Amino acid sequence: MTETGWRDRPSEILRVGEGFDLGTFDTRATPGFTGGKVEGKAARARLGERLSDLQEMLYAEGRSGGGRAVVLVLQGMDTSGKGGISRHVLGMVDPQGVAVRSFGAPTPEELQHHYLWRVRRALPRPGRIGVFDRSHYEDVLVARVARLVEGDPWQHRYAEINRFERETEAAGITVVKIALMISPEEQLARLGERLERPEKFWKYDPSDLDARERWDEYMHAYQDVFDATSTSSAPWHVVPADRKWYARLAVTQLLVDTLEDLHLSWPEATFDVGAERARFRALLPVDDAVAG
Amino acid sequence: MTETGWRDRPSEILRVGEGFDLGTFDTRATPGFTGGKVEGKAARARLGERLSDLQEMLYAEGRSGGGRAVVLVLQGMDTSGKGGISRHVLGMVDPQGVAVRSFGAPTPEELQHHYLWRVRRALPRPGRIGVFDRSHYEDVLVARVARLVEGDPWQHRYAEINRFERETEAAGITVVKIALMISPEEQLARLGERLERPEKFWKYDPSDLDARERWDEYMHAYQDVFDATSTSSAPWHVVPADRKWYARLAVTQLLVDTLEDLHLSWPEATFDVGAERARFRALLPVDDAVAG
Repeated sequence: MTETGWRDRPSEILRVGEGFDLGTFDTRATPGFTGGKVEGKAARARLGERLSDLQEMLYAEGRSGGGRAVVLVLQGMDTSGKGGISRHVLGMVDPQGVAVRSFGAPTPEELQHHYLWRVRRALPRPGRIGVFDRSHYEDVLVARVARLVEGDPWQHRYAEINRFERETEAAGITVVKIALMISPEEQLARLGERLERPEKFWKYDPSDLDARERWDEYMHAYQDVFDATSTSSAPWHVVPADRKWYARLAVTQLLVDTLEDLHLSWPEATFDVGAERARFRALLPVDDAVAG
Repeated sequence: MTETGWRDRPSEILRVGEGFDLGTFDTRATPGFTGGKVEGKAARARLGERLSDLQEMLYAEGRSGGGRAVVLVLQGMDTSGKGGISRHVLGMVDPQGVAVRSFGAPTPEELQHHYLWRVRRALPRPGRIGVFDRSHYEDVLVARVARLVEGDPWQHRYAEINRFERETEAAGITVVKIALMISPEEQLARLGERLERPEKFWKYDPSDLDARERWDEYMHAYQDVFDATSTSSAPWHVVPADRKWYARLAVTQLLVDTLEDLHLSWPEATFDVGAERARFRALLPVDDAVAG
């Protein structure tokens, strides 16, 4: 792995395992990567080409009758960089094969349905990489911390979510779950930037500062989510995100590894290659046909 | 316009006007642009930054309650480069704000509906740039040439399409119509590449060669479409596409011009900026707060 700059595979080192503790998690670290920002950016650019090739193969498979797809579930506190992942990681591949969906507060229509209803509908079509900017996990994170739901349905919901993800995987859609973790200090600095520049105002919401007051409750809810929903087929990857370059590189590598694991190949021809080539040659101008 | 490399605005020079004749159209030309391939690629890269800024402003407007959107309708014969536009033009902006939709042969469900049904459903959401890779125009192009529909409904459909586009524009969605035009010789060369390389087989369909036999009929159908549906609010732009660099540059410029014409601006703050900045400063560590 050394030529990639990785000492350890991010799919292993960032994966939530037994005894994972968010309380001691270092959001400024760059686990597994041997270089700094300059090397990290260069590594992501190189990986982008591989990602682009793999994505095209997945898309080709989808166009040729295959049913597989990938969905990248992105969670994280405000300003943790979810939008930057869409832009700087998925931005490296053909937009034709990507579908980004942001989940905000549910609409009146969505509220009339089960909380997984809008998520099921947003699953990527065959051959696509779907990106969920927030997801069904909001229904066990903000819903819990901001007390949007009565009672104590969390254990029930974790089980429901695990079942939903198993069904999704059984339908051929690989679920990649990523939590971008920043420190409260880093968040404060990023919110400050949004408040400073008028072209960033639209990204700012006064409730972002309110949520900070419940930081510990959020971390507690995240820890419970990791404990309950990091399954062997759909594990969580917790990515330190104070350093944007590292988070983007790590997610790119995770996506590349996921696609590699699908053992994609170019679809076989669905036509008689020899016959079509002959038809083609017959259409060439006489000079070319003789030369060919 | 000279610093951009354009002698004439593509929105004017490529626009279908009175007396437009596809029969004398030069698919290898580079109308309005003063440079060659090298200058063209550099000009597109520069324009990409402007496109990206404008797209973000449109997206910000959409996220802040605005209803406007843009839909790019791409038509053209097989291999004319519609996919390349998605990748190389829309690929320059944040995938979060882009939704690409390919219209293939209608599915059984789609066939049970009016031909505009699936198109209406695919219109971009507020703040988005939608891309239609083929569109409702297939219903007056392939439907006509391959005789998929009985009778002679074409005049009726043109009127229906014009009405549909007027309604779409009235709903705040700007319709940008682009036809990429290649020569039969250029198409043959491009089909040859698909037949040569196994990683391109999935893009090849034997019916592509069949369609060539009806090239003149297709050109006739295109001419009728241009005559009947190039309206003042949603005109057609016919782009010579034998040179990919030119077609991509021209579409980028058309998209930039379209977005410029929307007179976008960053959304006003929906909160009290002074009060939020004060809240923010109160949260800073003491040293920073004093310094600030």
